[in-house]
Amino acid sequence: MIRKQVVLAADLAGTVVFAIEGANAAIRAGLDLLGVLVLSFMVALGGGVIRDLLIGATPPSAMRDWRYPALAFAAGLVTFLLHLQMQAVPTLLLTTLDAAGLALFAVAGAEKALDFGINPFIAMLMGAMTGCGGGVMRDILLARVPMVLVADIYASAALLGACVVVVGRRLGCPPAVAAVLGFIVCFALRMAAVQFGWQLPRLAG
Amino acid sequence: MIRKQVVLAADLAGTVVFAIEGANAAIRAGLDLLGVLVLSFMVALGGGVIRDLLIGATPPSAMRDWRYPALAFAAGLVTFLLHLQMQAVPTLLLTTLDAAGLALFAVAGAEKALDFGINPFIAMLMGAMTGCGGGVMRDILLARVPMVLVADIYASAALLGACVVVVGRRLGCPPAVAAVLGFIVCFALRMAAVQFGWQLPRLAG
Amino acid sequence: MIRKQVVLAADLAGTVVFAIEGANAAIRAGLDLLGVLVLSFMVALGGGVIRDLLIGATPPSAMRDWRYPALAFAAGLVTFLLHLQMQAVPTLLLTTLDAAGLALFAVAGAEKALDFGINPFIAMLMGAMTGCGGGVMRDILLARVPMVLVADIYASAALLGACVVVVGRRLGCPPAVAAVLGFIVCFALRMAAVQFGWQLPRLAG
Repeated sequence: MIRKQVVLAADLAGTVVFAIEGANAAIRAGLDLLGVLVLSFMVALGGGVIRDLLIGATPPSAMRDWRYPALAFAAGLVTFLLHLQMQAVPTLLLTTLDAAGLALFAVAGAEKALDFGINPFIAMLMGAMTGCGGGVMRDILLARVPMVLVADIYASAALLGACVVVVGRRLGCPPAVAAVLGFIVCFALRMAAVQFGWQLPRLAG
Repeated sequence: MIRKQVVLAADLAGTVVFAIEGANAAIRAGLDLLGVLVLSFMVALGGGVIRDLLIGATPPSAMRDWRYPALAFAAGLVTFLLHLQMQAVPTLLLTTLDAAGLALFAVAGAEKALDFGINPFIAMLMGAMTGCGGGVMRDILLARVPMVLVADIYASAALLGACVVVVGRRLGCPPAVAAVLGFIVCFALRMAAVQFGWQLPRLAG
Repeated sequence: MIRKQVVLAADLAGTVVFAIEGANAAIRAGLDLLGVLVLSFMVALGGGVIRDLLIGATPPSAMRDWRYPALAFAAGLVTFLLHLQMQAVPTLLLTTLDAAGLALFAVAGAEKALDFGINPFIAMLMGAMTGCGGGVMRDILLARVPMVLVADIYASAALLGACVVVVGRRLGCPPAVAAVLGFIVCFALRMAAVQFGWQLPRLAG
């Protein structure tokens, strides 16, 4: 019971963090209020919506529970109204919250895919998709190449966290333990990559 | 019986109007004949397809009834062939037809979502998605930021029209009355916004 | 039995060819290793995933059989590692393999749609979508107008091949014969178009 509430609280917190990021990206790109709200929704819930469509969990959970879109819109609206104050938030805090949101979504996405009987390898991909899909949709809507495909250890961290969940469950870990381990691995790898400037290899053009 | 035929006729008319707009955008962007047909399809039917995927109405109705894609392609082809004549169509007529199509799709989209048992708040979003989704897909395919996110009272008009439908039904209006009211509100707001140059707020970059 | 193995082998070969093309496009666009793998997946499997979502075959087959994504990722990784050697592959070979992959996917896509009870006209569109959808997603992710909408006889060849399959079955051809005919028509049209520089009509801007 308590665990369920922890999961719900974490999920709502992750939605808020990602919605704020979507709103900030929309404001920087010069979108109007509607564009800000749409990007809040997309970044917060887009990855989960695509995951649900792909694993056959339709309608997607964001379409079934009005609280998620309402929360994303509310977070986007507050970001729009308090934009100047938001700029005072330290970058490190934003990066940390984003890494936590990524880890949370990656773990939750992999778990949901497994619960729907999806093959473990695909479940790992679905975890990464849940964590990164919203950001990819943000970049597509802003007509630019998705950041996550170009640079940074971001999707890779989500993949590794989801992998830990999948492998942990396979090895018989209690689900809660596998989830916490996956969260830690994803979060730690993402923070270390930011700290040390790690990048994936890329071929010189 | 008569009402059903009115709805069908309106739906087909909206499809034609949006398909012509898609074709015009494709021609202006220098696409070839295939690109023109694809954009006709996307603008006319893309919003409804995404709505159907999201509310779990699969296969989407545009995949089940060949007349809708055939009509969209035919409208695109005619637009391609008669492009010079099309340019003589007054802008005001195009704007009016577009506003009518938007209102129609927003109302129909909200109604269909409600019929599928979707929560009223989400149904409102689905109405706006039905009205604007095709235009968003057009802009994504043309590699530019969706117009609807940047400027104009367009998606907002669709949202408000869909909201009237949802609230009207909740308050016990007969569905036809709610639909007509929603149509009028969306259409009137869109036309007034064009007329008076209304815009949503936007933060200075 | 033998036919089933031929179909499987062809399907896997088409996946590899398209994955290599996705990887090459990603490398040229300066994406990192993760971006290369994502584009390999998208080009190889994206068209089929969208087709499956549209015809209601969820979860899409690429989500149900881990061998397809694994193969696409492996092909992308090998392309990344052997990029210099890949550049020595003659263009004509690449074009030929691509045309064969296109023809294969167009035929298989139309067949699957028919098997799911989709209307023949829509099944034809689904064949073209299976062949071209991955390339469209590649171009969307690279923030450029999909090549297939702008120039070349490419989607049109896929459409025609899928059309032959659909019409052939209608006329009572054995499925294998219809498939082979559709393959030949699509492949031949595509190769001829490349050879002779055929283009669809386009209106002068």
